[in-house]
Amino acid sequence: MKIAIGDLTDFARGAAFLGTGGGGDPYVGRLLTENVMRDYGEVEIIDADQVPDDARVIPSALMGAPTVIVEKLMRAEDTSIAFRRLETLLDRKAYATMPIEAGGVNSLLPLVTGAKLGLPVVDADGMGRAFPELQIVTFSVYGVACSPMTISNEHEECVIVEARDNHSSEALARTVCTRMGGLATIALYPMSGADLKRSAVRKTMSLALEIGRTIRRAREASADVFEALKAYLGTTEYYTHSRIIFDGKIVDMRRETKRGWSIGHCTIEGFGGDPSRMEITFKNENLVARVDGRVRAIVPDLICVLDRETAEPITTEGLRYSQRVKVMGVSVPAIMRTPEALAIFGPKCFGIDEPFQPIETLD
Amino acid sequence: MKIAIGDLTDFARGAAFLGTGGGGDPYVGRLLTENVMRDYGEVEIIDADQVPDDARVIPSALMGAPTVIVEKLMRAEDTSIAFRRLETLLDRKAYATMPIEAGGVNSLLPLVTGAKLGLPVVDADGMGRAFPELQIVTFSVYGVACSPMTISNEHEECVIVEARDNHSSEALARTVCTRMGGLATIALYPMSGADLKRSAVRKTMSLALEIGRTIRRAREASADVFEALKAYLGTTEYYTHSRIIFDGKIVDMRRETKRGWSIGHCTIEGFGGDPSRMEITFKNENLVARVDGRVRAIVPDLICVLDRETAEPITTEGLRYSQRVKVMGVSVPAIMRTPEALAIFGPKCFGIDEPFQPIETLD
Repeated sequence: MKIAIGDLTDFARGAAFLGTGGGGDPYVGRLLTENVMRDYGEVEIIDADQVPDDARVIPSALMGAPTVIVEKLMRAEDTSIAFRRLETLLDRKAYATMPIEAGGVNSLLPLVTGAKLGLPVVDADGMGRAFPELQIVTFSVYGVACSPMTISNEHEECVIVEARDNHSSEALARTVCTRMGGLATIALYPMSGADLKRSAVRKTMSLALEIGRTIRRAREASADVFEALKAYLGTTEYYTHSRIIFDGKIVDMRRETKRGWSIGHCTIEGFGGDPSRMEITFKNENLVARVDGRVRAIVPDLICVLDRETAEPITTEGLRYSQRVKVMGVSVPAIMRTPEALAIFGPKCFGIDEPFQPIETLD
Repeated sequence: MKIAIGDLTDFARGAAFLGTGGGGDPYVGRLLTENVMRDYGEVEIIDADQVPDDARVIPSALMGAPTVIVEKLMRAEDTSIAFRRLETLLDRKAYATMPIEAGGVNSLLPLVTGAKLGLPVVDADGMGRAFPELQIVTFSVYGVACSPMTISNEHEECVIVEARDNHSSEALARTVCTRMGGLATIALYPMSGADLKRSAVRKTMSLALEIGRTIRRAREASADVFEALKAYLGTTEYYTHSRIIFDGKIVDMRRETKRGWSIGHCTIEGFGGDPSRMEITFKNENLVARVDGRVRAIVPDLICVLDRETAEPITTEGLRYSQRVKVMGVSVPAIMRTPEALAIFGPKCFGIDEPFQPIETLD
């Protein structure tokens, strides 16, 4: 499978859907990628099974608060410095790159790296959605080390972190990223094909493309976009269960950019005389959605805030007072719901008291 | 020349004198070094001229606020991680190590590195005193790059910084050091023998040892320690001019540990009916000493606060209310007073309005 310029709008939209509020702004992600693809051509997407067990895969990503990603656009020529530096450090060329998370920027950045360096991108990622910290990935859950990792900025500066564990990699990289102005390109979790196969969330690149296409086609056919989405997700292997968990208007927004993250709450008031209110808590990504205090969807399941008419995904930094939205809850793959996975990115990891409850049990 | 365990007390005292308030606590520096020398033996001190032009020299140091250095003692086994990592990164063994500054800890840390790794230490440093930031060195003044540099902590973690300039190396390393708990071992300014010879302040290791010995011998002979010091400094090549610029009691201290530095003021009231007051401003090191508003000594010249009886140097973190002190001003080598040098570490660099005035013109 190839991703070409013509696919990018659909792909970025679908990736933003999976980003569940985070993972970067799809407009920014698309602009950056279009620019590079115009010069370097389309990118090959390969299945994880196509990667030899002893090959080296290096994920690439943007690090930073979504609010900063929107304000400070990365130049395409700066995006591969960290990647190249990690290859040199490891004294080994990468066989492929891949995303660490699904999102409007971070699903696309590996396409930029792939296009520029002539590498395929693996159809997988390390979160199956977006998360706000580097150690909150399935790679961590299944024992892959985040470091050595590299962090670079628009001045072609590079910092290499060799930390004792993935939590410390995140802490050191975050402080460097903040000092670099809140935005940096990173290359991290260098891993073998064998590690990739046992630790990654599979097929999320093709999933993003199909989600984006489904939304566009339903719009073009003037069909019910939400029904179309539900129908498509029902046919996928893992993101099978989806449901509209709220329909209303944003009446209150609290958001701050703090220590490199975008943190806040969003309150949505029910439509058509519905007296109930949904409150969504986020840290870059939506983490829990409660209606009148009762959990309706909770991390790691997806909480996707969509435009009420077009089903366009709205990132947390795009949320505005008075927007009319539908909120969709979506189940995530089994690899993200194991006890080991929930120990790394379950509700408790984000200071949420309620335990994880699969969306399909919250009807 | 060799430095043995028996020399360390004198050496640390003399280094603290040159540290002009900073460079670390000599008691801590001595303990750390004694420990290592007991296992590895004495260390050879070589003259800069003995280093071949194409040999590699890597300075080693502790980075952090003096207040933290006193509270969090470094284990000897952790001190060479950064150094070894930089050697590996550069794929070349070091011919020698050396200090970046003179001070109670940072003149001694290269002895630890030298003893452990069997390397000689060059009789020179990059400041000829101590300064609070990594780019404020004669190496910077004369075009040597600070990075690649390495920063390591007691968890055997290592961060490598490859920055565009020495100011950015300092900024990135400082944020990493702070995240590591305010104290880290660093290896930086990897340079050739040729670079060393044109950029270093020479003979400051042997100078520190002789200053320490002079103070001890004068005490043992019940002679006037300050006169002995002045007489000895008068015989040195560069630190020739010295003078007691104040004699009194500390009546006010303001000190805070902020963004990784120890910053503050110290007020000293004159003895014996002298109605004047000296105020010393410091950022890790003493920067300017004014009497009733008039400059009496100013950076980069040395401002050494000494115990009034024993002439023991008092570091800025050792300053206490009611201490009786004599303050000595000392001239620094010509290499530190050139217009290029003053552009990097003259008064203006520390936000001080008055221009540099050599101590010998302030009589």
